[in-house]
Amino acid sequence: MIYLLDLFGVAVFAITGSLAARRKQLDLFGVIVIALVTAIGGGTLRDLILGQTPVFWIQDSTYIVIGVFSALLTFIIARFNLIPRRALILADAFGLALFSVLGTQTALNAGVEPLPAVIMGMMTGTAGGIIRDLLTNEIPLILRSEIYATASLLGATTFVLLDDIPLTVNVQMSLAMLVTLCLRLIAIRRRWNLPVFKETPPKNTKGQSDHESP
Amino acid sequence: MIYLLDLFGVAVFAITGSLAARRKQLDLFGVIVIALVTAIGGGTLRDLILGQTPVFWIQDSTYIVIGVFSALLTFIIARFNLIPRRALILADAFGLALFSVLGTQTALNAGVEPLPAVIMGMMTGTAGGIIRDLLTNEIPLILRSEIYATASLLGATTFVLLDDIPLTVNVQMSLAMLVTLCLRLIAIRRRWNLPVFKETPPKNTKGQSDHESP
Amino acid sequence: MIYLLDLFGVAVFAITGSLAARRKQLDLFGVIVIALVTAIGGGTLRDLILGQTPVFWIQDSTYIVIGVFSALLTFIIARFNLIPRRALILADAFGLALFSVLGTQTALNAGVEPLPAVIMGMMTGTAGGIIRDLLTNEIPLILRSEIYATASLLGATTFVLLDDIPLTVNVQMSLAMLVTLCLRLIAIRRRWNLPVFKETPPKNTKGQSDHESP
Repeated sequence: MIYLLDLFGVAVFAITGSLAARRKQLDLFGVIVIALVTAIGGGTLRDLILGQTPVFWIQDSTYIVIGVFSALLTFIIARFNLIPRRALILADAFGLALFSVLGTQTALNAGVEPLPAVIMGMMTGTAGGIIRDLLTNEIPLILRSEIYATASLLGATTFVLLDDIPLTVNVQMSLAMLVTLCLRLIAIRRRWNLPVFKETPPKNTKGQSDHESP
Repeated sequence: MIYLLDLFGVAVFAITGSLAARRKQLDLFGVIVIALVTAIGGGTLRDLILGQTPVFWIQDSTYIVIGVFSALLTFIIARFNLIPRRALILADAFGLALFSVLGTQTALNAGVEPLPAVIMGMMTGTAGGIIRDLLTNEIPLILRSEIYATASLLGATTFVLLDDIPLTVNVQMSLAMLVTLCLRLIAIRRRWNLPVFKETPPKNTKGQSDHESP
Repeated sequence: MIYLLDLFGVAVFAITGSLAARRKQLDLFGVIVIALVTAIGGGTLRDLILGQTPVFWIQDSTYIVIGVFSALLTFIIARFNLIPRRALILADAFGLALFSVLGTQTALNAGVEPLPAVIMGMMTGTAGGIIRDLLTNEIPLILRSEIYATASLLGATTFVLLDDIPLTVNVQMSLAMLVTLCLRLIAIRRRWNLPVFKETPPKNTKGQSDHESP
């Protein structure tokens, strides 16, 4: 069951990756690379940092098959404007919730302490999207706007907190995913944002800005 | 023999990295970093994902010596416009063919299944150039134009297919490299490109594009 | 003692990361991510390449606590322009010196040869800042200007050279850090730069530049 959900998450993220590639007019190969990176990038980074190598998609190539297939399908379908936006938003929020909680669980199972486990969960949920934005030369959207990674963080935290409470793991996962899913969907609807780092007015002194971050 | 070819590939990729750094007017150190990253980035990522650590250039520092030396030489020679363009194009295509096939072989030897092995081969051949473009703030060229990574992919696939056929490994490697090399050189000459993801006309609705790839 | 210095380095780099995020008007979450990546990115890459997984901040979550706390503090304090620039420059140069030497020492202790150990040291000192610049969509500053990574490189080299001389490790580390610290501070004061890769005048031939770095 979890395995099927995981594959569904890979498919969803591959689709959002393909659509990002569309806006940059990449060719077919570029679309597949961006789709794969978006779909399996977060889990790959998680496995590398935990030292669980070879990483998951080496051990089970179904992930790559699903990712490539989703990218090809999107490449074709998107030409006809057949992607239902609302379904995609919901699916992406679901993928984020799922990957955040699964990543946290993988880290806890590997004996990681709660705080780093939450970071690992958030990384699993968001790193793919960050790499996608890097490759398409954007400042990663999740660093700038909307409650995206924050929703991931709170879902991961919920799962860690529920870990001590005597519930089955399925209930723990469902509740944690629900936190991410609700927060993300409400944030989209209400256009919530975190406070932005208030920039002081520019001072026209190049020397100073050089020094601040050398 | 393969070891010497491998070092030659490192030298070639270090040179293309240095030339990319030239266009961005990086300083001497920047040139060396970009050259090294281009030359050993693909193999490093391959080793990390396979879990073969410490990575190859830690175990044999000849790779770094060759990379730094090639960068320094390019830094000096390029001032006099002495780089023969045609030789460089050929050498770069050769490096791509070599790294793609060697990467696939390394993965197969590590017991990886055929499909992920092909991905590992392509990654070995192209990731260095992708990181190079990221560091110089470009959308990676190979995601946008020409049959570069596709040539890598087909060479890697050829090697996997030949794996079951009773030929010596040298013949298998040579044939697979030939596929990449020919496809790449023909693509340059004929300016072949893969189909581009057809962009639908912009709709002037910021909200929608935010949602597509949140 | 070294552990406390290490945490101090993490705090300093988290602050410079937060300030870089300020200039890009990232939200609170983005600031924390950039701060963490700047502070622990170099050490994470070092641990991955050496194969020392799980990486250091998984095994001791104090690093993450310090990083997040420093980012939050900077987020608040920077609104009042309370960051003393001179202290920050000094602290950043100190962090660079410390991480470069500690990274080299970690690599040597893991049995790495001198030359790759120097590269590992430089990577530990500078990779966090490079990833920070990638995420904020800048060509990494250290690749373009001032003697930053060069100072790191010379400190790491000094430590490797002192390794054979019968001194206590504290004296070796202090001397090596002094090399980086002095070179970096003198370079800031005198605005030293390495020679820039002299660009030949543009030739208005798109085809050629495509070929140079395909």
